Amino acid sequence: MKYTVITGASSGIGYETALAFAARGKNLILAARRTEELEQLKQQIASIDSSLDVVIRSVDLSIAQNVYEFYESLWEYDLETWINNAGFGNFASVGDQHLPRIEQMIHLNIEALTILSSLYVRDYAEKEGTQILNISSGGGYTIVANAVTYCATKFYVSAFTEGLAQELKGKGLPMQAKVLAPAATETEFAQHALNVKEFSYDKSVPKFHTAKEMAGFLLDLYDSEKVVGIVDGLTYEFKLQDPIFPYAAGRSND
Amino acid sequence: MKYTVITGASSGIGYETALAFAARGKNLILAARRTEELEQLKQQIASIDSSLDVVIRSVDLSIAQNVYEFYESLWEYDLETWINNAGFGNFASVGDQHLPRIEQMIHLNIEALTILSSLYVRDYAEKEGTQILNISSGGGYTIVANAVTYCATKFYVSAFTEGLAQELKGKGLPMQAKVLAPAATETEFAQHALNVKEFSYDKSVPKFHTAKEMAGFLLDLYDSEKVVGIVDGLTYEFKLQDPIFPYAAGRSND
Repeated sequence: MKYTVITGASSGIGYETALAFAARGKNLILAARRTEELEQLKQQIASIDSSLDVVIRSVDLSIAQNVYEFYESLWEYDLETWINNAGFGNFASVGDQHLPRIEQMIHLNIEALTILSSLYVRDYAEKEGTQILNISSGGGYTIVANAVTYCATKFYVSAFTEGLAQELKGKGLPMQAKVLAPAATETEFAQHALNVKEFSYDKSVPKFHTAKEMAGFLLDLYDSEKVVGIVDGLTYEFKLQDPIFPYAAGRSND
Repeated sequence: MKYTVITGASSGIGYETALAFAARGKNLILAARRTEELEQLKQQIASIDSSLDVVIRSVDLSIAQNVYEFYESLWEYDLETWINNAGFGNFASVGDQHLPRIEQMIHLNIEALTILSSLYVRDYAEKEGTQILNISSGGGYTIVANAVTYCATKFYVSAFTEGLAQELKGKGLPMQAKVLAPAATETEFAQHALNVKEFSYDKSVPKFHTAKEMAGFLLDLYDSEKVVGIVDGLTYEFKLQDPIFPYAAGRSND
């Protein structure tokens, strides 16, 4: 039996992605810190398709030791798809930003994603039909004012994932690596990034997608042969395309 | 009395940069893990210009707690320039890379650089004549095969530093932020990145700069009004230029 792993599944794009993959008949492994939200999602999926197996894991992936333990805890499952969705943003100027929060963001957006991607690639890259999907941001291709450090973490995600895609193709391995780059999406993102209790996208953001729309785009990316799925920051059109950053195949030491 | 801080000063570009700034009559604060090499460098500088004050700090900046302590230990000095040079590379495919080493690379190349940049900007951004220079890589603009994760850390450094430069300019602050992007440079880099005891650039690398040449380029960048100093990966020509990544000034929350 095959499984799709989704981190950060308790809300937003992760939550809707779980529902979208469930609608495709995929068994799921859902990870997030909040157990109650995961239980609720599991029940919702059971009401849609009771034949699906849904495994939940309560874990804080901003702590490296937890990341390894989480991955090792999945040894008995056959992992068809891995979606690194867990991450958060921070709006502040570099000189004003709260550093413990920034460290946590680096640990989650970069370190956890790198560890999980590396382990999944190590174990599954030779298996037909496998995919790794990493959630970056439009801010992972265009630096956005007042979110410089967040954007830098997403430039990391974009470059790492595009590079991984090129590497897998270069070696002729069947696993596909892809990067999703949403623009503004109605989730808990703004609330956390601005450190406020409530946030209305309708009132504050001129254009945005719903999390459900974004999960639909992620499925489009999953179905395509392209590496990058990106929302145009001006038109809000979703485009599937080839890697954006330059890549030097050069001399390999393998 | 004003000081120039250089991390990773015990060898390579950091070492030569210390000599180059000493030749400009700058007092120095030099940080690295290896005390003996720093002591040797301090003696060499004293033999060039005995009037300079050279402060050394033995510190492993891949541990966040050390990073904060290192910065706090400099409270009594007037810091004119901050150069985040400490960092290392790793050659391996994503599925084969040694994860403890990768975590250490993320902690040093990304986390330490972010903490130190943020603290320096917080304390000095309003002071005339201050500069922060972060050492990225050509791999921070072009992904290089078999070094995907290293390059992703350097995409972070490039995006973070370009974004910081834009942010400082946007606020009309006097501090300048700049990014140096070397190509192959004859240092201990290859030895560490390949995890070998010896490495001959002359025998193995068709084109490269010496660390001394690179320190000269860094001085050129220091003297210029441009944000990016980058070595062309093909011609090995050094160019000073405007930010390379797109930047959306957009709505600021300040």
